[in-house]
Amino acid sequence: MKKERLMTPGPTQVPEESLLTLARQVTHHRTPQFESLFEKTRRATAELLRTEGEVFFITGSGTASMETALMNVVAPGETILVLSSGKFSERWAEMGEVFGAKVVTCAVPWGEPFRPEQVADLLRAHPETAAVFGTLTETSTGVRHPIAELGRAVRENSDALFVVDGISGIGADRFEMDAWSVDLAVIGSQKALMGISGGGFVAVAPRAWEKIEKTPRRGFYFDLLKYRKSAQARTTPFTPAKSILEGLAVNLDAILGEGIENVWRRTALLAEATRAGIDAIGLARTTSSPADSMTAVFFPEEAAFDPKRFMSEIHERFGVKFAAGQGPWKGKIFRMAHFGLIDEFDILGTLGAIELALHFAGRPVEPGKGAAAAQRVFLRESKAFSSEN
Amino acid sequence: MKKERLMTPGPTQVPEESLLTLARQVTHHRTPQFESLFEKTRRATAELLRTEGEVFFITGSGTASMETALMNVVAPGETILVLSSGKFSERWAEMGEVFGAKVVTCAVPWGEPFRPEQVADLLRAHPETAAVFGTLTETSTGVRHPIAELGRAVRENSDALFVVDGISGIGADRFEMDAWSVDLAVIGSQKALMGISGGGFVAVAPRAWEKIEKTPRRGFYFDLLKYRKSAQARTTPFTPAKSILEGLAVNLDAILGEGIENVWRRTALLAEATRAGIDAIGLARTTSSPADSMTAVFFPEEAAFDPKRFMSEIHERFGVKFAAGQGPWKGKIFRMAHFGLIDEFDILGTLGAIELALHFAGRPVEPGKGAAAAQRVFLRESKAFSSEN
Repeated sequence: MKKERLMTPGPTQVPEESLLTLARQVTHHRTPQFESLFEKTRRATAELLRTEGEVFFITGSGTASMETALMNVVAPGETILVLSSGKFSERWAEMGEVFGAKVVTCAVPWGEPFRPEQVADLLRAHPETAAVFGTLTETSTGVRHPIAELGRAVRENSDALFVVDGISGIGADRFEMDAWSVDLAVIGSQKALMGISGGGFVAVAPRAWEKIEKTPRRGFYFDLLKYRKSAQARTTPFTPAKSILEGLAVNLDAILGEGIENVWRRTALLAEATRAGIDAIGLARTTSSPADSMTAVFFPEEAAFDPKRFMSEIHERFGVKFAAGQGPWKGKIFRMAHFGLIDEFDILGTLGAIELALHFAGRPVEPGKGAAAAQRVFLRESKAFSSEN
Repeated sequence: MKKERLMTPGPTQVPEESLLTLARQVTHHRTPQFESLFEKTRRATAELLRTEGEVFFITGSGTASMETALMNVVAPGETILVLSSGKFSERWAEMGEVFGAKVVTCAVPWGEPFRPEQVADLLRAHPETAAVFGTLTETSTGVRHPIAELGRAVRENSDALFVVDGISGIGADRFEMDAWSVDLAVIGSQKALMGISGGGFVAVAPRAWEKIEKTPRRGFYFDLLKYRKSAQARTTPFTPAKSILEGLAVNLDAILGEGIENVWRRTALLAEATRAGIDAIGLARTTSSPADSMTAVFFPEEAAFDPKRFMSEIHERFGVKFAAGQGPWKGKIFRMAHFGLIDEFDILGTLGAIELALHFAGRPVEPGKGAAAAQRVFLRESKAFSSEN
């Protein structure tokens, strides 16, 4: 009878309305019904991304959508600039090397955001750069990067395309593809879109097609020209994970029904309350440029504290599933989401559970400080809303 | 209140027990529970394939699993031999060309199976061949190829690896990976395994690893060495479509519970009954080497007959969804499955619906001949079973 509370920054809780569509008997994907689903989700994702460009559904993990974006705009031997700030942005560099690109890395320490001047300087030093690869929110560190400013730096200092991994950020943290000069953007199904894992979207701005058409090796499964051609007939070039798309259609309806500005505002409030709670508990957060989609928190450094015990206590006693640290931060941080279905109640419960799990793992706490700080944030906002009405 | 009868050779009907797992709330994939699921499905698919090799779950369409198999064993400039007999086997050649292989094609007319001597001759003429790409059952034509004999021809006449697309056949038509000298085999989630679309498996025989390790460009998402490394920790290198795998685990339990020999026998009987019914109706089948998984049937050639009307009548009146013809056979054939959940009742209803739809589309029929012929096959087998008991 144990309740699970999935608080990881992907996969995330899936709405019941969406889950129930998955239990319906399968129908074929070469049908007018699928064409409607295809068109509906295409329009919805373009609206979500604020782009006039085209959006393609890719059946595969988020990494498959990243690879689609990269393979289609980079020829072997070309120079790419990777903005590297954690495990997932490093993946752009690993992938670029696998496909024979000359990878120039613009690195910041884990936990720090990029400064636009860094990127501008590197682009002036490497005018041959074909594409710049960035990340909206780095899931391994909890950092949000200033994509608007970075997009301007790219556009003003080069002809390079700007490709952004928005897998864990888009739908939670503000993102405006066209206004921010982003040429290709990547979304995952199992993050703020609240779907099951196994799907993603690649959005392509009109400006990017010239380069894509010239790219000599676009692969087969990941070839965006195949996806563009099929999209004219409102379908996919290969058998799509139709069930995933059906679930996402329900969620996109809910997101756009609420209004993406409202979703961003709601997510930002949950993020602020979470940060206030973590600060009140006395834990250190990983960054001064936090994402709204998630919060990453350092474990206490005291010798008496047992991080593994913390992770197991909070899961075993309270059903709360956090993500652990990766790479250099393995065993040093925990990461929690506050996007999608997660609400004020979840944040209050989670902050309480964190305090108790800290206690059981060797760090004494004063009960209630975390939730109290979060409540004050909610209360302030509630007052603000009341005075507006 | 219309009932849908999905009779296409993929996607196919998904068992209720499996669909209901999809409606459960999502849990994380980096957990002991996922490791159990991973291990269970790995063992089950290896048993299904009759291999001592390793089997990897790939999140993506069947084509993604095909590309995984191809990219990992073929270096640009190497020669591959593609056994080309329809739309899906032609895909091996298209894919090989995209990745820079020298493609030698062994072609048979649509509807015909390969003869082992053809393959042996070509391999002796091209001793440099790195890999041979075949297909167990060609979904565009309904042909089953003699993989056991082809595997022997490959092994006896070259050092090439033998890669088999078993997407639409494995789990329905007999397949014995190790005994038949198959080095890599590909399965899809939405065919005889009765899952939802979006997943596949690539099986790798021990003999293939030496070549895989030497292949210079294995890609990133499709790199089998990443999958092998992660498998040691009972997980996947990238976020898997866990829901798809959970549904498949239920189905694999059912398949192996029944016994794969029994599943093959049952499927063969449905296939035989279907063929007897089609013959009795007076329609021509596409091949003398038919798959057990599906039957492909030519439309009557009379001017008065309207194939589009047939396809819409059978779907609109009876809810029966068939697959249409592809490539040169577009508008000339229909294709129906008899694998997975499809049973005797479905075959009888479908044969009756075919007769009525033929009538409405301009081809007079004598009602009941198709079902009668199928019933006689079931009756014969029923007697055989009774006498055994």
